[in-house]
Amino acid sequence: MENNPDPILARLADVISARRAADPETSYVARLLAKAPDAVLKKIGEEATELVMAAKDGTPDRVVSEMADLWFHCLVALEQYGLRPEAVLNELQRREGLSGLDEKAARRAKERGA
Amino acid sequence: MENNPDPILARLADVISARRAADPETSYVARLLAKAPDAVLKKIGEEATELVMAAKDGTPDRVVSEMADLWFHCLVALEQYGLRPEAVLNELQRREGLSGLDEKAARRAKERGA
Amino acid sequence: MENNPDPILARLADVISARRAADPETSYVARLLAKAPDAVLKKIGEEATELVMAAKDGTPDRVVSEMADLWFHCLVALEQYGLRPEAVLNELQRREGLSGLDEKAARRAKERGA
Amino acid sequence: MENNPDPILARLADVISARRAADPETSYVARLLAKAPDAVLKKIGEEATELVMAAKDGTPDRVVSEMADLWFHCLVALEQYGLRPEAVLNELQRREGLSGLDEKAARRAKERGA
Repeated sequence: MENNPDPILARLADVISARRAADPETSYVARLLAKAPDAVLKKIGEEATELVMAAKDGTPDRVVSEMADLWFHCLVALEQYGLRPEAVLNELQRREGLSGLDEKAARRAKERGA
Repeated sequence: MENNPDPILARLADVISARRAADPETSYVARLLAKAPDAVLKKIGEEATELVMAAKDGTPDRVVSEMADLWFHCLVALEQYGLRPEAVLNELQRREGLSGLDEKAARRAKERGA
Repeated sequence: MENNPDPILARLADVISARRAADPETSYVARLLAKAPDAVLKKIGEEATELVMAAKDGTPDRVVSEMADLWFHCLVALEQYGLRPEAVLNELQRREGLSGLDEKAARRAKERGA
Repeated sequence: MENNPDPILARLADVISARRAADPETSYVARLLAKAPDAVLKKIGEEATELVMAAKDGTPDRVVSEMADLWFHCLVALEQYGLRPEAVLNELQRREGLSGLDEKAARRAKERGA
């Protein structure tokens, strides 16, 4: 599990990485990477806004679809910097542990105060 | 693998879901969910901007850290709408397939044109 | 001055308002307003991100140009809601006064504390 | 009019500029400028998101209020780069002219085609 924390994100990162060498005319990913770094970062700002709008509309299907767009462009940004989604997942896992400890500590502090 | 596409994201979603009932004073997640939906959506806009700035600075550690922040708040937004990260991952997987077909089609069209 | 706080923004708002009735094929503004409200809001998110990137690059010309893009789309958003830039300028003016009072109060509180 | 395109924005820019030297403990502007450039850019991303949310809620008062927040932080960003709001207003004015010409040209091209 440590070695392959998310098969879908990891496999998608492989696909994105392979497209780096593709023809920008046929590959959207190659086109984004050719205009590094601003093209993909602009898309992250745009997709985040679209996600917020879908969420305000309260349409679950569009929330999922816009979040998939956002995460996809996050994976392209990672590729741009030679990074892997596993690094982000491991960071989330590390914090989950820390946060668990934090919350427990906060709870105890509160109980003692009571 | 189909049933559990990403153990880390799925487990983190469970943790977030469990915190819904926590005291907003000790739990950051409970605090965000108590001010639904705007509190977490505002954070998504904020974290996307911070990710863009870290990327422009070209600091890989901060790119990973800010992307973890962004994905974490995405998971809270999913919880807010009763959704799971598996839905986003499945959507990404579905597109990966479609996109593969698209790219193949575009390549063939180009070869025929040549 | 109260009646016409900013001739350029007010005149641009008039131009935008007049284009509401234009053909979406020839008028960018009419096209944005035809896809209300999301089209222009998406542009606000996108232009804010581009402004942040220009600022990180430290290129003054692009900061000005991207900020003009952002403000332009803000004016289109105001038109969409039947609002005028004068309302935003008056709000800024009102706060300038309040903030001046706030700062003075904070300064006095500090002096008393010292 | 050329020399003073917007008295409110210009005066607010003067106030912001004067606060550069203020104590970050009592002045919000001084605090933002002390953490340049990221603090104010982060706020631009955040306020743009809040503006989008207010617009989706369709609450005119909050649209005005959030847009005032966004423009205020834009003025702080301009100060950070030694720029003035007049530069943005002049750029908008320049485009208004260009766009007018563009639209006329597009309209003529269409009439000829018809």
